[in-house]
Amino acid sequence: MASPGSLDAESESFEPRPFFTIGQHDSNRRETLTDDHYRHILNSGFHFATTPITNDHFKQRVVDLYKSFLKEREQWGLDLSNQSLPGPVVSTLTDEDTNYGPGTYVGSLVAYCSPWIDLCSSNPLIASISRQVLNLELAYASFAGARNIIIPGPRRDDGNAAVVRYARAVREGLQVASRINIIIHMPMYREPRLEEKAETLSQLVGEAGAADPGKEQEIDIFTSWDSWHTIRSVCDYAARLYVALRIPRRVPEKVLQGRWFAEPLYYLTVGAEIFQKNPAGYPSLSRHHQELIASYMRFRNPPSLLLSDVGPDADAFANQMALEFPSLAEASQALKENRRPTVPMNPYVSYIKHLERSQEPFSALDTQSLLSFQDWLQSPLQPLADNLESATYEVFEGDPVKYNQYELAIAKAMIDWREQKLPTAQDGTNSDLVVAVAGAGRGPLVTRVLRAAESTGTSIQLWALEKNQNAYVYLLGMNKRVWNNKVTVVKTDMRGWEGPKVPGYDSLISKVDILVTELLGSFGDNELSPECLDGIQRHLSQPHGISIPSSYTAHLSPIATPKIFADLSSRVTGTPDAFETPWVTLLYAIDFVAQKVPDHPRFQQAWEFSHPVGLLRADEFAEEAGMAAKYVPPGVGSMYGSSGANDHNTRYCHLTFVCPTRGVIHGLAGYFESVLYAPHSGKEPVEISILPDQIDRKSKDMISWFPIFFPLKKPMYFPQDTELEVSMWRQTDDTKVWYEWIVEAYAWVGPKTRLKVGESELHTSRNVGCRF
Amino acid sequence: MASPGSLDAESESFEPRPFFTIGQHDSNRRETLTDDHYRHILNSGFHFATTPITNDHFKQRVVDLYKSFLKEREQWGLDLSNQSLPGPVVSTLTDEDTNYGPGTYVGSLVAYCSPWIDLCSSNPLIASISRQVLNLELAYASFAGARNIIIPGPRRDDGNAAVVRYARAVREGLQVASRINIIIHMPMYREPRLEEKAETLSQLVGEAGAADPGKEQEIDIFTSWDSWHTIRSVCDYAARLYVALRIPRRVPEKVLQGRWFAEPLYYLTVGAEIFQKNPAGYPSLSRHHQELIASYMRFRNPPSLLLSDVGPDADAFANQMALEFPSLAEASQALKENRRPTVPMNPYVSYIKHLERSQEPFSALDTQSLLSFQDWLQSPLQPLADNLESATYEVFEGDPVKYNQYELAIAKAMIDWREQKLPTAQDGTNSDLVVAVAGAGRGPLVTRVLRAAESTGTSIQLWALEKNQNAYVYLLGMNKRVWNNKVTVVKTDMRGWEGPKVPGYDSLISKVDILVTELLGSFGDNELSPECLDGIQRHLSQPHGISIPSSYTAHLSPIATPKIFADLSSRVTGTPDAFETPWVTLLYAIDFVAQKVPDHPRFQQAWEFSHPVGLLRADEFAEEAGMAAKYVPPGVGSMYGSSGANDHNTRYCHLTFVCPTRGVIHGLAGYFESVLYAPHSGKEPVEISILPDQIDRKSKDMISWFPIFFPLKKPMYFPQDTELEVSMWRQTDDTKVWYEWIVEAYAWVGPKTRLKVGESELHTSRNVGCRF
Repeated sequence: MASPGSLDAESESFEPRPFFTIGQHDSNRRETLTDDHYRHILNSGFHFATTPITNDHFKQRVVDLYKSFLKEREQWGLDLSNQSLPGPVVSTLTDEDTNYGPGTYVGSLVAYCSPWIDLCSSNPLIASISRQVLNLELAYASFAGARNIIIPGPRRDDGNAAVVRYARAVREGLQVASRINIIIHMPMYREPRLEEKAETLSQLVGEAGAADPGKEQEIDIFTSWDSWHTIRSVCDYAARLYVALRIPRRVPEKVLQGRWFAEPLYYLTVGAEIFQKNPAGYPSLSRHHQELIASYMRFRNPPSLLLSDVGPDADAFANQMALEFPSLAEASQALKENRRPTVPMNPYVSYIKHLERSQEPFSALDTQSLLSFQDWLQSPLQPLADNLESATYEVFEGDPVKYNQYELAIAKAMIDWREQKLPTAQDGTNSDLVVAVAGAGRGPLVTRVLRAAESTGTSIQLWALEKNQNAYVYLLGMNKRVWNNKVTVVKTDMRGWEGPKVPGYDSLISKVDILVTELLGSFGDNELSPECLDGIQRHLSQPHGISIPSSYTAHLSPIATPKIFADLSSRVTGTPDAFETPWVTLLYAIDFVAQKVPDHPRFQQAWEFSHPVGLLRADEFAEEAGMAAKYVPPGVGSMYGSSGANDHNTRYCHLTFVCPTRGVIHGLAGYFESVLYAPHSGKEPVEISILPDQIDRKSKDMISWFPIFFPLKKPMYFPQDTELEVSMWRQTDDTKVWYEWIVEAYAWVGPKTRLKVGESELHTSRNVGCRF
Repeated sequence: MASPGSLDAESESFEPRPFFTIGQHDSNRRETLTDDHYRHILNSGFHFATTPITNDHFKQRVVDLYKSFLKEREQWGLDLSNQSLPGPVVSTLTDEDTNYGPGTYVGSLVAYCSPWIDLCSSNPLIASISRQVLNLELAYASFAGARNIIIPGPRRDDGNAAVVRYARAVREGLQVASRINIIIHMPMYREPRLEEKAETLSQLVGEAGAADPGKEQEIDIFTSWDSWHTIRSVCDYAARLYVALRIPRRVPEKVLQGRWFAEPLYYLTVGAEIFQKNPAGYPSLSRHHQELIASYMRFRNPPSLLLSDVGPDADAFANQMALEFPSLAEASQALKENRRPTVPMNPYVSYIKHLERSQEPFSALDTQSLLSFQDWLQSPLQPLADNLESATYEVFEGDPVKYNQYELAIAKAMIDWREQKLPTAQDGTNSDLVVAVAGAGRGPLVTRVLRAAESTGTSIQLWALEKNQNAYVYLLGMNKRVWNNKVTVVKTDMRGWEGPKVPGYDSLISKVDILVTELLGSFGDNELSPECLDGIQRHLSQPHGISIPSSYTAHLSPIATPKIFADLSSRVTGTPDAFETPWVTLLYAIDFVAQKVPDHPRFQQAWEFSHPVGLLRADEFAEEAGMAAKYVPPGVGSMYGSSGANDHNTRYCHLTFVCPTRGVIHGLAGYFESVLYAPHSGKEPVEISILPDQIDRKSKDMISWFPIFFPLKKPMYFPQDTELEVSMWRQTDDTKVWYEWIVEAYAWVGPKTRLKVGESELHTSRNVGCRF
């Protein structure tokens, strides 16, 4: 790595990269910044800085209050354990308690609450005073115009409800500072010898250390996350509550990095002690630290970097000022001339700016669309019920990967057909292969079929079916302008199509050899591909007729996604079904809690659909298959009101996911894969996949589908060595299709003992199911 | 115990006792009952009987359908593992499939679903057919007019999601039979050799036994309850879903009896095999069985008893009929003459009727009021904000126990005062003891003060304060008519009272020696006794002034109460705060999940209030105590918008409850105790208590307070050896008081390992808090 000094920002190309906002925090700062000091910090390359809200005078006043209170109680001979005795009340701030206040920069200063308060204390008086101080500071910072306030996190993570007490105080703080972001400063994990150094109120007043860091013991790297989880849970996943994550000296395992990745990171705080010196003596970060930071900076709204105790501190500033402005007269002269003092860039900032320039640029895909869709929730399309608009089709058509795979599949099918010398549906009339594109939209698949026919030298008779009368107009135009009238365009719902009539033999109804459709949703079958194909497959020739796609599978994985949970929680009043809707979303800030172990992969197949089905759809069953009428509906299906006609398209799965570390889940991520065509020869099938661990191999850069997300109404906490058992159903009542899901948690607590530790409700999307 | 034959119902006294409704179930019944047969059963002493919905013809049809389906699939060479293949659909019922239908008795016949269906099966075809049969039967029974339908429970409780599949089918069944009670037949526990005997569909078609009872292993007596819990959870605690509980041969431990006690029991099913023969050869039940049944029969709506396979069966009936009606002519003659055939009472019924007569009669309290209040939810009174009505006062006054304790406390205080020769507030003027009843209502405590003064020979000056102007009128009348004008009645909020002015010395304001109030709620402080007493205690003489009550404590215990949870779930749409309201309710169908262990009792004290407080309320603090103004509000209290003036009345507790067996909780039961007066001598204090384990000792038969219930929004499941950690707060913002509560669950899974396994939300009653 080159030293920062050798790099020139102007020489860099202008490819878009993550933008690093850099803040300055000085843990020894005791008074708010003067305007001069703040300007000096900005001139050193920082974008913003933190400020304490109150000063040492206030701190001393609180300490004195507590001490004299105890003393006077003693003098009065009062029983301290009597809960009914009034405790001390911290009176409101005066101008002696703070230098902070409304001013030019106040909105860009980040307020930092007094680190000496002890909201966790088991001493009710200490805890009460701490809450009062917190509320005084939050209220005053709100008044002054702060937009972001950092509260130092709890000092310890262990039990006795200390963290719950802390969390309850923060919850009230969100109400006291009702329009401000509250950011909890948490270490990534409790790294030994990296505890908060500021003395707590308990220590200041000489109480037995309610905030002792505790004896050193085996490090459990998840305790800090546990505390954060408790805090945000008690605060109901408030939208204004964030984390300032302290980067540790030693970068932890990926599983912990991934856990925090899903949390609402507002700042990454990086202390001077994290930096190394490079050979030239400049501060730099280890490769692991660089990678950690890089991974957290690729969000649409990446966290800001808050550098702690890297200077310039107040002393350095004073010295600097003394150099620059030897006299007041000169200083005011400099100001008058609007002369900007030339402050050298802070070396830590220089390094971070170098790091910024060395970030991997965003891909074209990222910048054009994907970034803006991170974790953004969409209702799934209902293409069967609604007519899509041209712009929607255009988005779909913009994915070359998908259509290339389709063309490849069609071409392979045509070659197979020829090589195997199969009879076509048309044999006896002419030998053209009959191809139908059902649900042709604006025709991208029609184009690909024509290309495949040309490239393979196959003569075909091509039908394009479309139910959307608006797209139909477009198809007619395409046929004239682009396809040389080679296509028979039919305006019909594919389920009501009469089949390909042989030209010149109008009384004969022929069959289709290759049926091409693109009806798949993010979960495969969720846009009713099975029901639609049921309705047309009677026109497929037997026994050789081919459906492209030939099969598709749905896949699941449980995930933690606190941001989406918070989003849904805020919607549920207006959208009561928000937690029982499968949402299409580019899942990004998520944590896959399940680990891959033998027999239990991280992504597991829920079920499969394949086409054509060996027997036709149920109401054709008897006729086509010659079976007895006793199998035929009407009967009573599995669901209320159904006759069982679509029961063969129900599915059920029971999957077990293994979670070695404790955590929480907010729902299930859903994906699909599809075999578009599997050559008869057993050669490699043509596939598409949106599975995170398969997409690069099977259909790299395909962007037509985001994953689907099945939420849980309540976050589900689970201990280490838990197996999450997911039951999911695809249900139907002959008029619509919906999903149901339930999760149970079982923890292994010994080689033979597995305890049930939790259960979700049964969730159902029946209310928002897909009609057909 | 006398043999049933020797008892005569008519000779019994007419004290009200639980009423036993007795039903008849015949597990070999294959057809619905004829009218004659049903009449015969009723004549044998039963109140109702069960009937199958479909017959053997239908069962055979279903078995044949499945078998021929498999066979034909095989003939067609279809891949059975292909999920896309349509499965068999059971066509609708015909008149060959059932003899059951609309008729005279149908509403009083309990429909019993086919026991051979296997909703748990992991074979999707078997499970699907079973669901179809269930839906056909439920739909038909609904049509026919059934009011109650029993579904045989799952055959096994073990995992692989079998019970979840069963539960999902029942959930749909509730929709198919949309106005009918569905009752799941569950064994109390899986008693070896007491499995369901009916063959399942899987067995009938020769499939590997998906419903095998499994190899005999160590009995876990909670597995059956687990299954029920899963079923009702998946069914969202539906109000129409009940249990028919099969009484086992061997009565299990109390902890399991208590678990089922809290569940919605609709039937207790008692098989012939449970009965013993008494010396006279008649059937009878063991003492344990009698006690078990007795405990379940004291509900306001007790379950019915369903006797299984105790005759008269169809054969017996036929024989009987043959005896009674040797010819059709005679039979019709008998009918014409409205001659009721004399059928001997079934001996099992005789025994049950004997048992009924030997039940302990309801107490007067039970019959007058308590029975009707079982688990009925009331919002707590807000006597401070609302003026009570005379009838409400009258109810309160109807509790002699409470007022006797008050009188005792007042008398003891008066005696103490005299024996200790304490100066009265009036000394120097006259030596009358000044007594004030604050919040006098209609005057019951005034009466008791006068009685205590008389019985102890104390001369007093008595003040009665009342803010309710309507009750004030009543008090004035009482003073003239009953109290001989001995009382000075003042219309005032006690917090605004000017104090007792000495008669004839109008400029002097005296003090109160004994202040008597009855401001306690079910949780002690929940009707704002602390805040009210704060507002009046400056009138109490110092240092000897006495408050009656002198202190009170709040107590908690976590409970399972599925019926109340279901009730709240049904209210939550109209009452969004239903799950964040502390409800006053006569908790009855509950299960205390916490066991008493050293250091962790079942009922634990949350906090205490004592009066008078050593220092007066905060805004009097500086003046009275001579302390520096720095302790004095205004400041910022712990809560948004507060100035800390009432912060000394906040409370916090963190309690740990121990649960050795796994289970579920739906909330926290709250109670209070109060020391009305603790004699100076250290003699036994005068107390009242509503704690279940203390009330009989401290204030037996006191009925003024029901417990309070703090709900949880979601039932919280926990494994064995769990510690439930409850954090609770009494919060205030100077304008109102509310509670907050959160529960965390930690399981011990080894001598040193304690895992967090669950957590509730933080619940708050802020929205429904008590204003003051």
